[in-house]
Amino acid sequence: MTSQKSDSAMSPKITGELLRQLRQAMKNSKYFSEPIQAYIVPSGDAHQSEYIAPSDCRREFICGFNGSAGTAIVTEQHAAMWTDGRYFLQASQQMDNNWSLMKMGLKETPSQEDWLISILPENSKVGVDPWIIAADQWKNMSRALTSAGHSLVAVQDNLIDRLWTDRPERPSTQLRYLGLNYTGMSWQEKISALRAKMTKRKVTWFVATALDEIAWLFNLRGADIEYNPVFFAYAIVGMNTIRLFVDLKRLSVPALRDHLQLDSPCKPEMSVHTYPYESVYSELQAICAAHSPKDKVWISDKASCALTQVIPKIHRTPIPYTPLCLAKAVKNATEIQGMKMAHIKDAAALCELFAWLEKEIPKATVTEISAADKAEELRSQQKDFVGLSFPTISSVGPNGAIIHYRPLPETNRTLSLNEVYLIDSGAQYVDGTTDVTRTVHFGIPSAYEKECFTYVLKGHIAVSAAVFPNGTKGHLLDSFARAALWESGLDYLHGTGHGVGCFLNVHEGPCGISYKTFADEPLEAGMIVSDEPGYYEDGAFGIRIENVVLVVPAKPKYNYRNRGSLTFEPLTLVPIQVKMMNTELLTQKERDWVNEYHRICREVIGAELERQGRKGGLEWLIRETQPIA
Amino acid sequence: MTSQKSDSAMSPKITGELLRQLRQAMKNSKYFSEPIQAYIVPSGDAHQSEYIAPSDCRREFICGFNGSAGTAIVTEQHAAMWTDGRYFLQASQQMDNNWSLMKMGLKETPSQEDWLISILPENSKVGVDPWIIAADQWKNMSRALTSAGHSLVAVQDNLIDRLWTDRPERPSTQLRYLGLNYTGMSWQEKISALRAKMTKRKVTWFVATALDEIAWLFNLRGADIEYNPVFFAYAIVGMNTIRLFVDLKRLSVPALRDHLQLDSPCKPEMSVHTYPYESVYSELQAICAAHSPKDKVWISDKASCALTQVIPKIHRTPIPYTPLCLAKAVKNATEIQGMKMAHIKDAAALCELFAWLEKEIPKATVTEISAADKAEELRSQQKDFVGLSFPTISSVGPNGAIIHYRPLPETNRTLSLNEVYLIDSGAQYVDGTTDVTRTVHFGIPSAYEKECFTYVLKGHIAVSAAVFPNGTKGHLLDSFARAALWESGLDYLHGTGHGVGCFLNVHEGPCGISYKTFADEPLEAGMIVSDEPGYYEDGAFGIRIENVVLVVPAKPKYNYRNRGSLTFEPLTLVPIQVKMMNTELLTQKERDWVNEYHRICREVIGAELERQGRKGGLEWLIRETQPIA
Repeated sequence: MTSQKSDSAMSPKITGELLRQLRQAMKNSKYFSEPIQAYIVPSGDAHQSEYIAPSDCRREFICGFNGSAGTAIVTEQHAAMWTDGRYFLQASQQMDNNWSLMKMGLKETPSQEDWLISILPENSKVGVDPWIIAADQWKNMSRALTSAGHSLVAVQDNLIDRLWTDRPERPSTQLRYLGLNYTGMSWQEKISALRAKMTKRKVTWFVATALDEIAWLFNLRGADIEYNPVFFAYAIVGMNTIRLFVDLKRLSVPALRDHLQLDSPCKPEMSVHTYPYESVYSELQAICAAHSPKDKVWISDKASCALTQVIPKIHRTPIPYTPLCLAKAVKNATEIQGMKMAHIKDAAALCELFAWLEKEIPKATVTEISAADKAEELRSQQKDFVGLSFPTISSVGPNGAIIHYRPLPETNRTLSLNEVYLIDSGAQYVDGTTDVTRTVHFGIPSAYEKECFTYVLKGHIAVSAAVFPNGTKGHLLDSFARAALWESGLDYLHGTGHGVGCFLNVHEGPCGISYKTFADEPLEAGMIVSDEPGYYEDGAFGIRIENVVLVVPAKPKYNYRNRGSLTFEPLTLVPIQVKMMNTELLTQKERDWVNEYHRICREVIGAELERQGRKGGLEWLIRETQPIA
Repeated sequence: MTSQKSDSAMSPKITGELLRQLRQAMKNSKYFSEPIQAYIVPSGDAHQSEYIAPSDCRREFICGFNGSAGTAIVTEQHAAMWTDGRYFLQASQQMDNNWSLMKMGLKETPSQEDWLISILPENSKVGVDPWIIAADQWKNMSRALTSAGHSLVAVQDNLIDRLWTDRPERPSTQLRYLGLNYTGMSWQEKISALRAKMTKRKVTWFVATALDEIAWLFNLRGADIEYNPVFFAYAIVGMNTIRLFVDLKRLSVPALRDHLQLDSPCKPEMSVHTYPYESVYSELQAICAAHSPKDKVWISDKASCALTQVIPKIHRTPIPYTPLCLAKAVKNATEIQGMKMAHIKDAAALCELFAWLEKEIPKATVTEISAADKAEELRSQQKDFVGLSFPTISSVGPNGAIIHYRPLPETNRTLSLNEVYLIDSGAQYVDGTTDVTRTVHFGIPSAYEKECFTYVLKGHIAVSAAVFPNGTKGHLLDSFARAALWESGLDYLHGTGHGVGCFLNVHEGPCGISYKTFADEPLEAGMIVSDEPGYYEDGAFGIRIENVVLVVPAKPKYNYRNRGSLTFEPLTLVPIQVKMMNTELLTQKERDWVNEYHRICREVIGAELERQGRKGGLEWLIRETQPIA
C-alpha cells in the first residue's frame, strides 16, 4: 500500500453520538441480565494480534485513535483511552473532548483497574468481549475488580459491532507456501519438534492461537492483515493429530493441498485435518470433553479468554511463550541467510532513495508522503518484494517527534534543507523482513540537533557493540542505550528493541530490549532484534537510529565459567549520517565502530548497487561511508 | 561478637541419621492423617527475616549449610538444597554427600517446583511449616504442585523442631528507644502517615510482620537477631487502635513505657495496646471475625502463610511492599545526617585498620580472624557503636572467592604480601548502619589481579556516577556495573546493590540494584543502597568494591519532560587502593572520579582522624589518596 491510502485522519473523530449509543447498549437488557457500568474495548483481535484487520479496529471505531496499542474504557460518565509514550501526541490529536488520554508509563497515570475502582459506583459490572481480551489480562483485571467489590463480566455480543453498521468482513486472502530454501525446515519437522517438547513436559495437546505462530508452523503465509503476512487460523496439535481451523475455501489450490499433504499424507500422525475457522470453539470443547483426567493442554496465556476458558482449569497449562514462539525466534541458517539477503536488497533501495532525495529536495517538491512512496517504489523493484512490513514513518521536523507518525494529506510536510528528516520503514521480502530508521539532515543541522543525535548514536552503538554472557535477557541491555542521554538529562519513552520475524511480523516475541519486559526470554545466537534508541523533542524534531541486529557468539579474552558470550551483528547496512554527528562527543571506540560499520556497508551494499547498476545510490553510499577522523 | 565465636564449621555436617529421623517423621501418623512424600525447610523465621535467631536455624540444622539464603527439601529418596551464587562454594563445603547442591541462577538447575515434580510419585503430598513460608511462596509452590497432580500441605507441627532436642529459646533482649535526634520523626507521626495512606486506599487494618518495619515504626530497637537491631513482635494498626504483640516482660522499663505512652496516652487513637507475642494469631482472628464486609486488610505478600490465611481472602489485600517499607526506605534529613556521621566514624576505624595491617602483615602474625577482630575493636572505639551489622568477611586469596565467606579456625589464612585481601564489613551505630568492602594487596598484585580489579572498579564507578531519570528502578542500573567485565568475558553471580537501613538491617527493601529484582520500587532521593560489583576466581582470589551510596538529585544540562534526574553520593569514604588499579584501562572520566572521591575521603575522614588523634590512620589516608595521573 502507499501512505496516502490511509483512511484515518489526525483530526479528532467526533464521538458524542457513538458514546451515547454505546452507553444505551450498556443498559440494554437485550444483551445482559443486568446493565454494565463500564465497557472495555481492547486493541486486539481474537488472536491478540498487534496489527489487526479493518474488521477488528473496534477501539479506533469508538475513539478515533488508530495507533497499534491502546485500550478504551467507557463508563456511564467517562470515556478514557490508555496508550504508551509512542502515541501520546497522536492520540491527543485523534480523539475529541469526550475522551481522556491516559498516558501509560507516567507516574501520575492510574492503571485501568485503579481508574475503574476510583470512579465506579459500588458493586459495578465491567463488561468486555472475551474473544478480544487475553486470558492473562482478564485474570488481572478480574482479580483487581473483584477485590474492590466489582466484577468483570464476559459480554458475548460485542457492543461495538452492534453500533458499527458498516463494519468490514474478516479478510480471507490467498495463501502462499514456502519451500525449504526459504524456511530451512519442513512443517513436518516443526510438528515433530513441537511434539518432542510436549512429550518432555507431559503435555497432550497444544492450542496455537497466534497468527504468526500458525503461519510459521505450516510454512504458509497470507495477507489477511496489512503488513503482516499471516492468515486467520487456529491450530490444535495432539500427539497423533493435527487440526487446522481456517476458511476452507482457501485450501482449494492444488499446490497448497500438496504442501500440506491434505490428500495423501505419508504418515497418519502427520495428516492435517482441516476445519472451518469458526469451529475451533466447539472442536476444542469436544477434545476437552474426551480428555483423560491426566491430559494437559498448552495454551498461551495471551490467548483469548473465551478460548482459554473452554479448557477446564485442571487441564489448562497457560504459558507465557509457546514452544512455537521460542522455536520461531531462533532463526536457522537458511533463515539467517534469507534475512541477510533481504537486508542487502533493502539497503540498496534506501541508498537509492537518499541519493534521489538529495537531488530532489532543493526543488521543494518532495513531501513526507512522496518520499515514503518513493521508498516503497524503490523497494518494490527489489527481488521477492511482497509489501511493506509496517506503515512507513516519514516525518519532517516536528512530525518526527510523533513517534509512530504516519504522514497524512493534512499533516504532510515538505522535506527541506532546514529540518531534520526521520524515516522508519521496512519491507516484507519472501526471504526476510526488514525494519530500519535513519535520521538525516539535507542542510546544516543545529548544534543541538547534532548533540542529541550523537547521544542517540552512542546508545545505539553501546547496545550493538555490547558483549554479554550467554543467557542474558535483552532487558538487561536497555539502559546501555540510554546512558548517554540520561547523562544529559534526556531520555525516550519507548523500548530499545523488539524481535523481528523472518518474512513474518516485524514485531515478535519472546525477546526484545526494553525496560518494560521482564518476561523476555534470554538472548540466544540466531535471534534477531532491533536496536533503536531515539530522542524526541515535541514540536521540534525526532531522532531515531535503528538497525536490525543478529545475536552472534562473541569471543572475548576470558570465558567465565564457560558460559560463552554473545554480541550483535548488524543486518541493516545503511550508512548513518556523519553530518548529524558531533564527532567530538564520540570516544575513539565509538568512532572506530562507525568507521567499521561504514566499511562493511560500502563493501556489501556497494557490490549490490554495482550489480544492480544503481549509480546514484552507489555514489551516495561511497560519499556517506568516508571514514571519520 | 567476634568472628571466632562462630559455632558452625566449613567441614560438612554428618546428616545421615538426622535425615533418617526426618523421613520417619514424614511417615508418622502422629503428625498427619496421611504421610508426606517431601518436606520443605525454608530459610526464614515467622517474620521472613533474612538473618535469623539461633532458634530458627532449622535449615542449617538439617543440612549444615549456614548461609543467609537457602531452602532444603527432603523426600523419601533425595535431599537437596537450593542457594544462590554467593554461596555455591560454602554450601558444597558444609553439606555432606546426602545432599545435592542446587545452584540457583544456572540454566541447568531446576526450580524447586520442577525438581519436585520430576521426582515425586503421583499424587504426592509436600509438607511445609506455614509459619516459615511466605504467603507468595506458598501460593506459587502450591499452584505448581497442584497443576502436576500433587498438593502442598501445611504441617503445623514443625518436623525439624521435633528432631532438634537442644533447640535454643527464642531471644528476648532489652529494648532501646530512639529520640527525635536520631529518627527525625516520632512514632506517632509515623502512625499518622500510615493511617493517611490507609485512608487513601480505603484500607481499615494493616498487619506489620517484618521485624525491621515494626522497629522503625515505634522507634524501638532490640538485639534479638545478631547484627540486626530488631526484636520479635507483630503490630496491627487500625484507624483508631494500635496493637503491639511482644514479650510483655520487655515493656516493664519505665522509660520505654513513657516512650510508647503506655500508661498515659495523649489521644485514644494513639494509645498502644500491648499483647503477648503469641496472641497475634487469635487477635487477628478476632479482628477478622468482627469485620464489616467492606473492611480491607493490608498485609505483605511476604508475611507468613499461616498469618495471611487468618484473613479471609475477600478482606485480604496482599502487597509486595508495605507502606512502612516504602516510608522507611526514604531517609529523612536527620537519618541522612546520622548515616553520614556513622560512615565517617566507620571510615576512620578502617583507615586505622589498614595502617595497622600494613605494619603487622610483614610479621606474618595477622590472620583473617585477627584482622576481623581488629576491625571490630577499632569500630567499637567509635562513638555510639552498637555492634557489627553482619559477620565480617575477612578473606585472603582463594577464600575471597567464597562470596559470603566467614573465617573459621579451620579455614583461617594468614595475611601476606603475596595474596589479595578482601574485607567486607560494617557496623551498627546508634546513628546509622555501615557496609563497606575493600580489596587490597599488601605486596605486588599480578597483572591479572589488577586487570580484574580495574574492571570491577569501572563497574563501581559506572553505577556511582550514573545519572538517571527520577522514577528509574534500580535494576535498570545493574548492567552498568557489569559492562566492563562482560566485555572481557567476566561476570559475577550476585546483585550489585541492596537497600541499607538506618540503624536497622543492612539489607532492606524495596530498592536495590540487581538483575534479579524487577519488583523493586523506583529510586528516590533519600534512598540508600550499596554499590558492590565484584569478580571471583574460584581457588584464587575475590575482588569486590563496595560503597554505601545516597540517592541525590542531579542537575544535568537538560531536563526532559521536567522529570528531574538523580545520581548517587558515596556515604562510604574509604580510599580504594590505587596499587590494585591498572590505570591505563581507566578513561579520563574514571580517573577524575577516583581523584575526586579520594579528595573527599582525605578532606572529610582526614579531619575526623585528626580530631581523634589517630596518626597512623591519617598518614595512611594521605598516602592512599594521592591523585593518580
